Amino acid sequence: MRGVLIGRFQPFHLGHLAVVRALRAARPAEPLLLGIGSAQASYTWENPFTAGERFEMIDAALREAGLSDCPIVPLPDIERHAQWVAYVESMLPPFDRVYTNNPLTRLLFERARYAVESPPLVDRARFEGARIRDALAAGGSWTDRLPPAVAQYLLRVDAPQRLRLLRPGAA
Amino acid sequence: MRGVLIGRFQPFHLGHLAVVRALRAARPAEPLLLGIGSAQASYTWENPFTAGERFEMIDAALREAGLSDCPIVPLPDIERHAQWVAYVESMLPPFDRVYTNNPLTRLLFERARYAVESPPLVDRARFEGARIRDALAAGGSWTDRLPPAVAQYLLRVDAPQRLRLLRPGAA
Amino acid sequence: MRGVLIGRFQPFHLGHLAVVRALRAARPAEPLLLGIGSAQASYTWENPFTAGERFEMIDAALREAGLSDCPIVPLPDIERHAQWVAYVESMLPPFDRVYTNNPLTRLLFERARYAVESPPLVDRARFEGARIRDALAAGGSWTDRLPPAVAQYLLRVDAPQRLRLLRPGAA
Amino acid sequence: MRGVLIGRFQPFHLGHLAVVRALRAARPAEPLLLGIGSAQASYTWENPFTAGERFEMIDAALREAGLSDCPIVPLPDIERHAQWVAYVESMLPPFDRVYTNNPLTRLLFERARYAVESPPLVDRARFEGARIRDALAAGGSWTDRLPPAVAQYLLRVDAPQRLRLLRPGAA
Amino acid sequence: MRGVLIGRFQPFHLGHLAVVRALRAARPAEPLLLGIGSAQASYTWENPFTAGERFEMIDAALREAGLSDCPIVPLPDIERHAQWVAYVESMLPPFDRVYTNNPLTRLLFERARYAVESPPLVDRARFEGARIRDALAAGGSWTDRLPPAVAQYLLRVDAPQRLRLLRPGAA
Amino acid sequence: MRGVLIGRFQPFHLGHLAVVRALRAARPAEPLLLGIGSAQASYTWENPFTAGERFEMIDAALREAGLSDCPIVPLPDIERHAQWVAYVESMLPPFDRVYTNNPLTRLLFERARYAVESPPLVDRARFEGARIRDALAAGGSWTDRLPPAVAQYLLRVDAPQRLRLLRPGAA
Repeated sequence: MRGVLIGRFQPFHLGHLAVVRALRAARPAEPLLLGIGSAQASYTWENPFTAGERFEMIDAALREAGLSDCPIVPLPDIERHAQWVAYVESMLPPFDRVYTNNPLTRLLFERARYAVESPPLVDRARFEGARIRDALAAGGSWTDRLPPAVAQYLLRVDAPQRLRLLRPGAA
Repeated sequence: MRGVLIGRFQPFHLGHLAVVRALRAARPAEPLLLGIGSAQASYTWENPFTAGERFEMIDAALREAGLSDCPIVPLPDIERHAQWVAYVESMLPPFDRVYTNNPLTRLLFERARYAVESPPLVDRARFEGARIRDALAAGGSWTDRLPPAVAQYLLRVDAPQRLRLLRPGAA
Repeated sequence: MRGVLIGRFQPFHLGHLAVVRALRAARPAEPLLLGIGSAQASYTWENPFTAGERFEMIDAALREAGLSDCPIVPLPDIERHAQWVAYVESMLPPFDRVYTNNPLTRLLFERARYAVESPPLVDRARFEGARIRDALAAGGSWTDRLPPAVAQYLLRVDAPQRLRLLRPGAA
Repeated sequence: MRGVLIGRFQPFHLGHLAVVRALRAARPAEPLLLGIGSAQASYTWENPFTAGERFEMIDAALREAGLSDCPIVPLPDIERHAQWVAYVESMLPPFDRVYTNNPLTRLLFERARYAVESPPLVDRARFEGARIRDALAAGGSWTDRLPPAVAQYLLRVDAPQRLRLLRPGAA
Repeated sequence: MRGVLIGRFQPFHLGHLAVVRALRAARPAEPLLLGIGSAQASYTWENPFTAGERFEMIDAALREAGLSDCPIVPLPDIERHAQWVAYVESMLPPFDRVYTNNPLTRLLFERARYAVESPPLVDRARFEGARIRDALAAGGSWTDRLPPAVAQYLLRVDAPQRLRLLRPGAA
Repeated sequence: MRGVLIGRFQPFHLGHLAVVRALRAARPAEPLLLGIGSAQASYTWENPFTAGERFEMIDAALREAGLSDCPIVPLPDIERHAQWVAYVESMLPPFDRVYTNNPLTRLLFERARYAVESPPLVDRARFEGARIRDALAAGGSWTDRLPPAVAQYLLRVDAPQRLRLLRPGAA
């Protein structure tokens, strides 16, 4: 058995890390893959970071947390939802279980008879990608919502400046 | 510094494994990434295995060889060579060195000022993807050209049958 | 002469059926083709059903209504409007007349010198795709807005559940 | 149960018609769909006719032969074989049986647990698309290899001239 | 040194012309290229005119203004921002300076170490594409916001009618 | 009236220049556009140079020859021949006449009722792209087959080295 957790990780925050930690603790013998969704996207407000930058963030955060045995695989979108499961099956090594809170992902994998589970979301008011992107752009507090390695990385690539420029209405 | 080795790995054979082993030995402190080229392709004579199947083969072979610290990243082709370097940069975490024997890959990364090195090829008469695919389809000897874990995997998915059907002219 | 009626048919409802019946009655000697627009789309709020599911609905409804002599052809979108007419011409058998209430479709086919007619819309308050999707998701009344064969089909594939999950904001 | 026969039909010839007639006779109660493969292609040597032209040929030939109850559905190619079955499932109404002599199509649908059957090929020396295209371009005999309605259609669109221009090496 | 000014030019208005005139005056020895962004788009509210129509408008306006030595190059969008600079580099002759008021364009070209300058915007209340499209659709005053040659062209292709039909909510 | 000459110009050689000169001489009052076909392609044996490099070559050669009033427009391929004319119409300003020696281009534009003319080819044994690419790769004579400005450009970008690496079989 192998499990897959798919997310866009824009950016990878403490809520994501808590999910990975909980899944590894609950099923230590079951390998866990992380799939980076919308991997083709970057430099937009919804998807500011490239797949490679997200790989780097996740890799650094997992190492820091002692969870470095999870392969990370970028998954560029395909436009056709009816082929999504077949596409993911062709891009990832075999898996049996899908962890997701996205209703469409759940619907599509359940139709294909996968075990689908919803990992509990931790404190969405603080740990949600959209809110953290807002904080990055607006100058709010964000470093305490991220694994330290991610916060350092985002400073190094000057993420606040990038988010300010990508914010809808910027000019 | 991080190095990248890009190949199609159709299939991942002992020649590939020898290269990975040599690179890890030569630069033990430099992380090495494996990029799976033409990741979108499968079920063709040139690219019989999906990216996920190739991931599985490589992962099993590296574990078997005690080299399991190399991330494996699928890279679907883009059609436009002039954007290839920018594309790879956006899909992979930062890297400085590219290992390749492909003249186009060398040309494009050198133009972008990367360090490019050609890993020595081991016994091409035996360890070359096209010849191994021929042997799989024609019933020649192939298990001794592959890491044991890959040979087992190919038997499990009945690769000889698949290759026979995909061979040009099959009907 | 052949006529073409293009729609997304998400789902195919009594308003659509009334249009087909009226066109067949008005020009019984002129074959009528039904083109399924946005055929590549599915499992979204705007386009919940695959082209194949829509084919099945339309086919069943036309048989039920004794109108089964209309070929049904899926038309995946192309992104470039300036090529839309040439694209439809290449996908459909020859036609001379286009029935549409979509202003862009009208504009493009008129520029290419086709006869374009707007079939009268029947009771849009009840017979409009978006409202019927709302009713499917929200538990409102919907079976009486659909041909019986379509209503049965939607129950069989559990369309209300699908629509609830696809509704914007679902989680 | 519904059956599907997928071909490129470049052009639709007497061999195709014999297959359709045999399948309808063998299973009169099982509806039969014709899928036009490579529907996006046209004006090439391998695929000289548009999907719409092929639809017209097939429709005319089936009417002429009293077999007009087979829906005809264009299927533009997708590049990714691993998603081919999921794609066809999304474009066609539900089906259970696939008729094909193409080894890849057989492989992919069998893996997805469909019943796959190979319709007997009739006199391939005469009834094969490539040979008929050669005859069209070279001025050989071709009208007697086609249903009369198709032969008439090809004369009407001046197919011999088109094939001459598309033949590799034409200038 | 060569400079590039990228815009969508929907339509090309007096604000654009003022920018071209100012840039030519400031650096008469530096050739200036005009890149037509979103060149693949047309017949939408945001992009009503084809790349060819925009080429025609710009060409006529520059001739009228005695500025006809600026090549005009259509640039169809690519979806992947991380490859945008590499893409533009492959489509245009060599250039060193980019003129833009778009924050994303600035961000991407600065990261690639280009000189980026923001040409001063002239009277945005009157000279802005979206407002001029509104005026075209709504019957407001628009001819005085355009170079005479563009105004004539838009009358010739009946742009007001096109814009009325493309306006969101038209039916 | 405007004329269009479409070619891939890999590279732009003295044969191309002779055609442009002849067309300008024959119809001095008719503007002539040069369309760069397969503009998306580069770094392949068939298409070694980017659209931008080809633009630069053509522009330099025309200036050198005193023929600099021909706009140059890149035309990325679309895969669907049946839409090719509509596509070119949407990318170029209005034109009435097409100059081509390609039989497919002739066929498609004639079907769309354009005037199509075949410019006389000059000494194909020497002035043909494929032969010149061979000479570039193999070290044969090539500078005397190109306008001087193009020969200089190709030396500056080290085209012989590029062609050697792209030649089929290079390793």
